Amino acid sequence: MVLNSNRVDHFVCHGTTTTIKIQTDIPMQQTTPLEIHKVRLPPQHTTFHKLKHTLSEIFFPDDPLSTFKNQTCCTNFFLAIQYLFPIFQWAPHYNLLLLRHDLISGLTIASLAIPQGISYAKLANLPPIIGLYSSFVPPLIYSLLGSSKHIGVGPVSIASLVMGSMLSETVSYTQDPVLYLKLALTATFFAGVFQSSLGFLRLGFVIDFLSKATLVGFMAGAAIIVSLQQLKALFGIMHFTTKMQIIPVLTSLFMQKDEWSWQTILIGFSFLAFLLTARHISLRKPNLFWVSAAAPLTSVILSTILVFLLRNKVHKIAIIGELPKGVNPPSSNMLYFNGPYLALAIKTGLVTGILSLTEGIAVGRTFAALKNYQVDGNKEMMAIGLMNIAGSCSSCYVTSGSFSRSAVNYNAGAQTTVSNIIMASAVLVTLLFLMPLFYYTPNFVLASIIITAVIGLIDYQAAYKLWKVDKLDCLACLCSFFGVLFISVPLGLGIAVAISVIKILLHVSRPNTQVLGNIPGTLIFRNVNQYREALRIPSFLILAVESPIYFANSTYLQERILRWVREEEERIEANKENTLKCIILDMTAVTAIDTNGMDTVSELRKMLEKRSLQFVLANPVGNVMEKLHEANILEPFGLKGVYLTVAEAVADISSSLKTQP
Amino acid sequence: MVLNSNRVDHFVCHGTTTTIKIQTDIPMQQTTPLEIHKVRLPPQHTTFHKLKHTLSEIFFPDDPLSTFKNQTCCTNFFLAIQYLFPIFQWAPHYNLLLLRHDLISGLTIASLAIPQGISYAKLANLPPIIGLYSSFVPPLIYSLLGSSKHIGVGPVSIASLVMGSMLSETVSYTQDPVLYLKLALTATFFAGVFQSSLGFLRLGFVIDFLSKATLVGFMAGAAIIVSLQQLKALFGIMHFTTKMQIIPVLTSLFMQKDEWSWQTILIGFSFLAFLLTARHISLRKPNLFWVSAAAPLTSVILSTILVFLLRNKVHKIAIIGELPKGVNPPSSNMLYFNGPYLALAIKTGLVTGILSLTEGIAVGRTFAALKNYQVDGNKEMMAIGLMNIAGSCSSCYVTSGSFSRSAVNYNAGAQTTVSNIIMASAVLVTLLFLMPLFYYTPNFVLASIIITAVIGLIDYQAAYKLWKVDKLDCLACLCSFFGVLFISVPLGLGIAVAISVIKILLHVSRPNTQVLGNIPGTLIFRNVNQYREALRIPSFLILAVESPIYFANSTYLQERILRWVREEEERIEANKENTLKCIILDMTAVTAIDTNGMDTVSELRKMLEKRSLQFVLANPVGNVMEKLHEANILEPFGLKGVYLTVAEAVADISSSLKTQP
Repeated sequence: MVLNSNRVDHFVCHGTTTTIKIQTDIPMQQTTPLEIHKVRLPPQHTTFHKLKHTLSEIFFPDDPLSTFKNQTCCTNFFLAIQYLFPIFQWAPHYNLLLLRHDLISGLTIASLAIPQGISYAKLANLPPIIGLYSSFVPPLIYSLLGSSKHIGVGPVSIASLVMGSMLSETVSYTQDPVLYLKLALTATFFAGVFQSSLGFLRLGFVIDFLSKATLVGFMAGAAIIVSLQQLKALFGIMHFTTKMQIIPVLTSLFMQKDEWSWQTILIGFSFLAFLLTARHISLRKPNLFWVSAAAPLTSVILSTILVFLLRNKVHKIAIIGELPKGVNPPSSNMLYFNGPYLALAIKTGLVTGILSLTEGIAVGRTFAALKNYQVDGNKEMMAIGLMNIAGSCSSCYVTSGSFSRSAVNYNAGAQTTVSNIIMASAVLVTLLFLMPLFYYTPNFVLASIIITAVIGLIDYQAAYKLWKVDKLDCLACLCSFFGVLFISVPLGLGIAVAISVIKILLHVSRPNTQVLGNIPGTLIFRNVNQYREALRIPSFLILAVESPIYFANSTYLQERILRWVREEEERIEANKENTLKCIILDMTAVTAIDTNGMDTVSELRKMLEKRSLQFVLANPVGNVMEKLHEANILEPFGLKGVYLTVAEAVADISSSLKTQP
Repeated sequence: MVLNSNRVDHFVCHGTTTTIKIQTDIPMQQTTPLEIHKVRLPPQHTTFHKLKHTLSEIFFPDDPLSTFKNQTCCTNFFLAIQYLFPIFQWAPHYNLLLLRHDLISGLTIASLAIPQGISYAKLANLPPIIGLYSSFVPPLIYSLLGSSKHIGVGPVSIASLVMGSMLSETVSYTQDPVLYLKLALTATFFAGVFQSSLGFLRLGFVIDFLSKATLVGFMAGAAIIVSLQQLKALFGIMHFTTKMQIIPVLTSLFMQKDEWSWQTILIGFSFLAFLLTARHISLRKPNLFWVSAAAPLTSVILSTILVFLLRNKVHKIAIIGELPKGVNPPSSNMLYFNGPYLALAIKTGLVTGILSLTEGIAVGRTFAALKNYQVDGNKEMMAIGLMNIAGSCSSCYVTSGSFSRSAVNYNAGAQTTVSNIIMASAVLVTLLFLMPLFYYTPNFVLASIIITAVIGLIDYQAAYKLWKVDKLDCLACLCSFFGVLFISVPLGLGIAVAISVIKILLHVSRPNTQVLGNIPGTLIFRNVNQYREALRIPSFLILAVESPIYFANSTYLQERILRWVREEEERIEANKENTLKCIILDMTAVTAIDTNGMDTVSELRKMLEKRSLQFVLANPVGNVMEKLHEANILEPFGLKGVYLTVAEAVADISSSLKTQP
């Protein structure tokens, strides 16, 4: 709907440039005539067109369908197939050289994936075999649907931890393991549904609200929580608290001193030291990545042999025990769709879904940026979501692109997602034939593997950089860190997101206003605070508002601008300068305006006029100009109320002030 | 803490202007040499200084203590007294002329206040006498503390309605009137505490989040809800639903057809017509304001006499009945501080507190703007809050600056808050001597008064303007309107606030990026979409980001900018123009940046460099420049990576492109 489309106002025009040449020598030491340009309205569009544009910017900012334009129907069909299953994009060009790379990297990540799968399943309080199942089906599905070439798919530590903590708060995994497993699978199902619908509805930007600062604090807190949980296995304690917070865990640790097993502690910490050393070596020399990649499997093999040899001498070492042989059993009958715990399963699914999604997308983007290709966030979400839905029907719990696996995969030279297929095949062989070998694998070695994996999540350098650069970001980081440590994992995350959102709102409700001055010898006007050479123009107060003018800040801006005027008048009086005649509002950074904002502009004009001060606008941007025009705010400003630049406003008004002193 | 304060970087300097004169004739048809200016860092401040500045902008934007500077101790004491009790500012200059004006306006609003007080108390399901009590104590306290000269204090319709609806959802006012009254007084107490602490903590900006659009919809919805409730009295129905939503109320109205009293309907609608006519006259001719001001009292008197005369003939007309004589009894012993309904009382207090505060502050600001004086929002909040705390201890329920009373007060020529004292005195006389006269006052006349008062809240013209100017604002308005009508009053308000906040977040997460072009013959660069005369510079892509670069939009902006580059390259290829060499990012409207944003800038530079495209920044503002500098993002940009204006960047880079083709 276009209102008043036929009305031609006297102060705006859609046609060619109309310029007025005026002679001005003060105040800008410029002797050539300065042209005065008109501020234009953007081309008029219908409401439908605007809506379409807005919606396409919100939901399709990456223009995913651009390749489909101007193609034949048949080409479009193939493009669609390739779009939906990226495997068809690279499969035709796949060759033996690529396979060689993928084979090496696939086997490398498999050697990491098997102990990690078992360990992370224990982190989620699930049977260890579920971790192996989760390293088999989801990677196969991802390799069909995913667009990242370097992601290594599998269970991830944060989602495992959160699932474990959220579910075990209500349901005991020791007393009712079947219900617990059912809920875990159901949560996985809902995580998948949530992830794929975010992708399908193109709402992927929701995960952008987890800012880097929030994630740094959250990851560090979660890493500490996870590591503390592992003390149970490392100290060989039988009766440990099921709580996750730092205080009950440490209390429990020292209350159960009589359960400490010195043999477990000795061997456990030796393996931990070995793993940490291996990690350290790989961090120092990235081409020795295989040291840290092979260390977990080596530790598992060594510790299993050790425990097997000591089996008759030491009884107190907890071991994994019997693991069932065979591939993933179907589990769609295990999904729990009605009953008192449904809400818990949905909630757990949402939280683990968003966390694993964040890790998966971040990992995909990181490695894509390194190799200079792009991953489509929304498509990745659908791939991860579908992989989790399929996983929940085949005895897998929440999986995603894992940071540690992907890093190893990338360093081992993976070229395509075939490395995931290789890894899945290796896991399949393990599931079919090698399960009995894990009977004597001790729990402490799994704990060591987990600690080594999560310790890398504590990024104190990033936290220090946050402190150095942005104190409020650092506060968000600390809040999520301490929230996770002392309150609970989802609540800590919630607090951090809330702080990030409040930070945005605070920025919007208290925007900066700057006084501008002229940089001598130019037509440039800049903040007098930043540019000390910038000079104030006598009789003028030039203010720049650095934010949209919204309901949330319109009252503040009105009062703040009036205070600027009051302070300027006081300053002028103190310095006995020329009296203030005109206030110029530079609207360059006012990128949007709403009804409250327009009232403010109109109100300010009236109030300043009552004090015999001229009030003009400089450079209103397209949509602001359009709205001011539609709401008839500009009419009282008259012919000379809106200028293209501050310089033109100053030149024009000062020449008219000279003629009417 | 200032880090690296001694480091002098090669690309920024704090000293005097260093300019480089270069000769450029293309592409801006300029033959004079263009100076290249350096972008400066703002003056360095300590973290403490920055924090102090930020906090003072958040909490003291109006610099309330400015008058206290450079004064003697004794003067400061008097100023403080005047600051806390504005009555001391004007009392010394008070004279008989002012008193004459205040006397007339005070008596006028008293004639409105008495029937309105009784009516609004019924709206809150409270005994009518509470409404009169509330028109006695709070105005007296406000006249001591308040800074607005024109506010008429008393119960307000929206807060009365919300209190009535929220409390009666849980507690029946017919079955347990004492508990209901206790809860109402407690809610008033908490409303006062909340209001005064908002003012004391200088968090007054919280009410700015109720945007005009939200309020327009909310008020209209509430007005309809209130009017529908009055149908009970106007139709003379005895058994009416206690629900507030439109559907149960209309259902109840037509289900109870057999209870309709034709006499009540006839007389009731006659009085309603009379009141609406009086309102219409005053709206048309503002100097006939006394017609609508006197109409309620006239109606009350006429209807009371009528019912008194008909008392033996018609029995079905509901009347107020016995009202206790005497001034406000103390009620601090009625406050309900522990028990199952405490949470309800607190919640009701918060919602009614914020609603009455919004009305009070808006009214104060409106009339202050008309008479060109300022009210201090935070101080007003303290005044309104303290008045409600005191009110809750003297049998008053929530009061505020009422829009209808203030309008009448202003039109009747009120000069100071003495008019409130006069009104309170008139109410006192009523309370002491005139209460028996109200025995026969019929309920339908109170219903008519309420309908006439609230009908003015339906501002369909404002809603139409919203639709015309801002579709999203209009959506927020409609949501709060329908939310109030069909769901519930607090929930409707909540939905509307949520939409307003989501609108801000959406704007932040999907900011505009614009392509800039040169306006021929000038150094000005503007959006090519808005200015059709603006020309793109060959080999350059100049983009302006219209928002801070935040965690919420950094991913989007990175992808969007890469898409702009891709599209520009496609366009160039199609038109066989010069290849793209350089991307200039105009940062004028990038008013803030966080760690995610800085990573984006750095990442973009790396990605574009890999494609052999130069990437430079133009005009980063003070704090953005400071952060980029502190985070060492600018170092890889080198000596020629940050320019003061787009024009200088284009001139400098195109001259260097010419020398190295």
